[in-house]
Amino acid sequence: MPYRAPVRDLAFSLTAVAGIDQVTATGAFPDYDGDVLAAVLEAAGQFSEGVLAPLNRPGDLAGAQYANGAVTAAPGFADAYRQFAEGGWTGLAAPVHAGGQGLPKALELAAFETVHAANMAFGLCPMLSLAAIEAIEEHGTEHQKTAYLPRMVSGEWTGAMCLTEPQAGSDLGALTSTATPNGDGTYSLTGQKIYITWGDHDATDNIVHLVLARLPDAPAGPKGISLFLANKYLVNVDGTLGDRNGFRPVGIEHKLGIHASPTCVMQYEGATAELVGRPNEGLAHMFTMMNAARVGVGVEGVGIAEMAYQHALAYALDRRQGRSIWTGEANAPIFDHPDVRRTLSVMKARIEAARAICLSTGVAADMARHAGTDDERRFWKGREDLFTPIAKAWSTDMGVDVASQGVQIHGGMGFVEETGAAQYYRDARIAPIYEGTNGIQAMDLVGRKLSQDGGASARAVIAEMKATLVEVARLYAGKPVERFATAITAVEDATLWLLDAKADPARGSDVLAAAAPYLTLMGDVIGGWMLAKGALAAKARLDARDGDPAWLEGKIALYEVYAANILGHASSRLAAIGQGGDLLQRMSREALGA
Amino acid sequence: MPYRAPVRDLAFSLTAVAGIDQVTATGAFPDYDGDVLAAVLEAAGQFSEGVLAPLNRPGDLAGAQYANGAVTAAPGFADAYRQFAEGGWTGLAAPVHAGGQGLPKALELAAFETVHAANMAFGLCPMLSLAAIEAIEEHGTEHQKTAYLPRMVSGEWTGAMCLTEPQAGSDLGALTSTATPNGDGTYSLTGQKIYITWGDHDATDNIVHLVLARLPDAPAGPKGISLFLANKYLVNVDGTLGDRNGFRPVGIEHKLGIHASPTCVMQYEGATAELVGRPNEGLAHMFTMMNAARVGVGVEGVGIAEMAYQHALAYALDRRQGRSIWTGEANAPIFDHPDVRRTLSVMKARIEAARAICLSTGVAADMARHAGTDDERRFWKGREDLFTPIAKAWSTDMGVDVASQGVQIHGGMGFVEETGAAQYYRDARIAPIYEGTNGIQAMDLVGRKLSQDGGASARAVIAEMKATLVEVARLYAGKPVERFATAITAVEDATLWLLDAKADPARGSDVLAAAAPYLTLMGDVIGGWMLAKGALAAKARLDARDGDPAWLEGKIALYEVYAANILGHASSRLAAIGQGGDLLQRMSREALGA
Repeated sequence: MPYRAPVRDLAFSLTAVAGIDQVTATGAFPDYDGDVLAAVLEAAGQFSEGVLAPLNRPGDLAGAQYANGAVTAAPGFADAYRQFAEGGWTGLAAPVHAGGQGLPKALELAAFETVHAANMAFGLCPMLSLAAIEAIEEHGTEHQKTAYLPRMVSGEWTGAMCLTEPQAGSDLGALTSTATPNGDGTYSLTGQKIYITWGDHDATDNIVHLVLARLPDAPAGPKGISLFLANKYLVNVDGTLGDRNGFRPVGIEHKLGIHASPTCVMQYEGATAELVGRPNEGLAHMFTMMNAARVGVGVEGVGIAEMAYQHALAYALDRRQGRSIWTGEANAPIFDHPDVRRTLSVMKARIEAARAICLSTGVAADMARHAGTDDERRFWKGREDLFTPIAKAWSTDMGVDVASQGVQIHGGMGFVEETGAAQYYRDARIAPIYEGTNGIQAMDLVGRKLSQDGGASARAVIAEMKATLVEVARLYAGKPVERFATAITAVEDATLWLLDAKADPARGSDVLAAAAPYLTLMGDVIGGWMLAKGALAAKARLDARDGDPAWLEGKIALYEVYAANILGHASSRLAAIGQGGDLLQRMSREALGA
Repeated sequence: MPYRAPVRDLAFSLTAVAGIDQVTATGAFPDYDGDVLAAVLEAAGQFSEGVLAPLNRPGDLAGAQYANGAVTAAPGFADAYRQFAEGGWTGLAAPVHAGGQGLPKALELAAFETVHAANMAFGLCPMLSLAAIEAIEEHGTEHQKTAYLPRMVSGEWTGAMCLTEPQAGSDLGALTSTATPNGDGTYSLTGQKIYITWGDHDATDNIVHLVLARLPDAPAGPKGISLFLANKYLVNVDGTLGDRNGFRPVGIEHKLGIHASPTCVMQYEGATAELVGRPNEGLAHMFTMMNAARVGVGVEGVGIAEMAYQHALAYALDRRQGRSIWTGEANAPIFDHPDVRRTLSVMKARIEAARAICLSTGVAADMARHAGTDDERRFWKGREDLFTPIAKAWSTDMGVDVASQGVQIHGGMGFVEETGAAQYYRDARIAPIYEGTNGIQAMDLVGRKLSQDGGASARAVIAEMKATLVEVARLYAGKPVERFATAITAVEDATLWLLDAKADPARGSDVLAAAAPYLTLMGDVIGGWMLAKGALAAKARLDARDGDPAWLEGKIALYEVYAANILGHASSRLAAIGQGGDLLQRMSREALGA
């Protein structure tokens, strides 16, 4: 089953829905234009199709291997990584001064979707490097930016993010790793970190670890955490690599999926480290780049779903069983069974909705940095903040569902590992968990992002959706219009209810009980908005005879499918949003059978 | 993580919700009473906890093994099977004349839930045997009933169901295996069957294969299929085993889950076989016992969900992160985070709803056979027919979702195989596929079960739900009542719409497009009805001071959780039900990106 990068859909989502052209006007991307967009997506697609996809199943079977304190990447992965770096893919959106190409983040996200789709285990390596690059770019010293950053941007070295400890997962404030000053400006780092993605491997000569730890005099809890940088090999003044530093992997996890991505337990035993940013502000420093990492995980959800979808679609076109109710053909492709067609259509609709949410978040991130005025930058930062938890959680939940439906469409074949559908189902399952579980994303949305600006960003989205509704009513009649209108009202009602509840300290558990259903409602409705924008753009192109009519007609039907199957549910989510914390508290240990 | 059989919940579901006491009045179960119910569930629970659960993870790791034309069960499984047979568990509901215990099917289903929960791969072996027993009991010759049935009921031999061929899965009419008369009353069977669960193993001396094949003069398609019986070892007149018969496994599948259940490719090469039932009516014969096998798979969905739930609940009570919003405790169990409590509560509510649907289907099956009058038997057969596809599909979809949420509650630990949560996620995935995919169940529901009696069975359910609604309005006020009322109306509207659409041959694709969403709606609302009945029974017991108050209060809160999180969505499913086949047909190959 070959992967075909959905280059046409990606370009459409970036231009017609996410509005990437807005970034051109900022002047911050002199090397970016529509031709560059097309060329980057085409080349990324070719690399993902030709180099990464063929390694996906072998990588799942062989896995990364650990032995004697070192990790070996799965066969072919180290070489693929070197090709990836040589192709310039590690520095697509990195600053030009650090050797990057200075292109928009949104375009990088779209290119990376093809990487994650073709080989999710591989994609994690550059994804985590990007997060480390961003942290150093934002908070590093001049020395760090000069000595390390260019070699990470070029892909010569990779980066790893080292946060979690056994007792400190969602609650990083509980971490206990320590860093004590050596007196020469460096620190001695000691502790154990778990779940360190690509924390060790043999694909590059050096790995830059960014590690959260506590200074000796640090206050307890989240305000006593600092960010440190530790190289796998100490770097000499002339840039050559010196001695091995005092940390190593002590094992890798045996996981449900992404077998080719080594998930390391790392032991730091007096490792030499440098402080990044200000003492005791490590958590805040980490969070400044969390948005980028989280939307990256959302894109992983889209990618794995796209792969599962393509696989299922190909099977449905190939596998013949029974008679078509549409054509009367005997022994017809199961594609012609309405329930299979419905399943595929809903899969496609949800993928395109999630893709547009993620890429819109990327555009917002670009604009938040580069828009012309403070007000504009504030507006876009609010959009980025609001969309990020939705992009992460909604897209990754979708990824699990779509991968599961991909197995289902294969029937018995889906449960047989050789087919490949099962791997997506296994791989997809991690994305709702890491970079902050989807429950944490929901708490972030209602606890911080929704109310940090008094609800202004949410209100702006609602106003824009209402403007789109006016246009939707020109393209469609009846249900597809009514469903969007009802859905917008549901978002408005839920948002007001939540802002109100948040204002009352006694209703804290009501807000938290509502968090996940509210995030799902937001994703469902914003996703519908995205597909509506796509349908409107497709109609305009159809009228202008600009593009493949069958494909453009598909965008118009796709919104209707989404409206019937997803938007139709939106208002009913209010029941779960309003269930209240008291009801859940009544679900005691005894009630739950413990 | 030990498994604890939910004996109290199972007994409650059977007696207070599914109404098993009705079978007593039929007089067909002289050996059954409330004490027997308690004793059977207790003993089944102990066996599942003590013998089967400890083999679950080792069985997943080792798997069944194939070598040199024979399958070896995973370590410990053959011995466990012999203990299972010695305990009388293979003949719980089988007729007394064949050596069974003659107990109600509904009680057997409840006992088997603990088997599937503790070890789903193991449970498949007796489950498939039961289907074979039922086929022979219903359609076999006197010789077959005398020579084979008692040894299958006793568990001395197992049975296997051999239907699928590579080109004939959902469409069994396409199968090509042949059986030619040998002239002595036996047949010579040739062909290949795939996905044969426990088709070969070393746990018993003999295996009775029931095989669908074509006679030489058979018409093409589904009306030319006959049912045959072929023993792994030929059975001599004196009952001793003779020569090896002409079939053997040629391989087993490498699967996503249920590794300890061998899924065989079987090759029949002139195997000696006997006809079961009438020539060319094999498919109909097979379908007479399909109801039982399908509800059995539904119970598998409940069992695997219960296991995943218990595992997640135990983790949530043990794992500490962050502060409780309810108690203020620092470093509190994550059980005290509202979103975790909500997730667990919804998991529990859906499990109890599915359990009651399956056990109600079992009671209906018992009553359909044993009720006193033709009218009553017809009524209960209609109920059994209507509920069966819902019990199968809704419960197994729930099983996948709940197993996925079980992984999620574990956070990163859930993705690590050692934890065990991942196995449930892998194992659960097969249940929506086999014994007729859930898409096939939905087609069966709208294409046959709903309309075969002009909608009478569906109307009867709606009328009973309305009667329960009156009582619900005495126990609750406001939303929990409104939501049930709205949900019943949605079922009524959807049912009328479908009966209407079915009357119009031009609307065939509309009906098929609606099938899966309609099944989900039915399951959602009937499940809510079940929990409401449970809440009403719990209230009566509370008032009578009969039972653990905290547990009974939990049943009352559980309905409210379900009403807010599931019933609240019911009416919105009408949008998907009414989407129509034309819209799906517009989702062309081009629109879907093929």
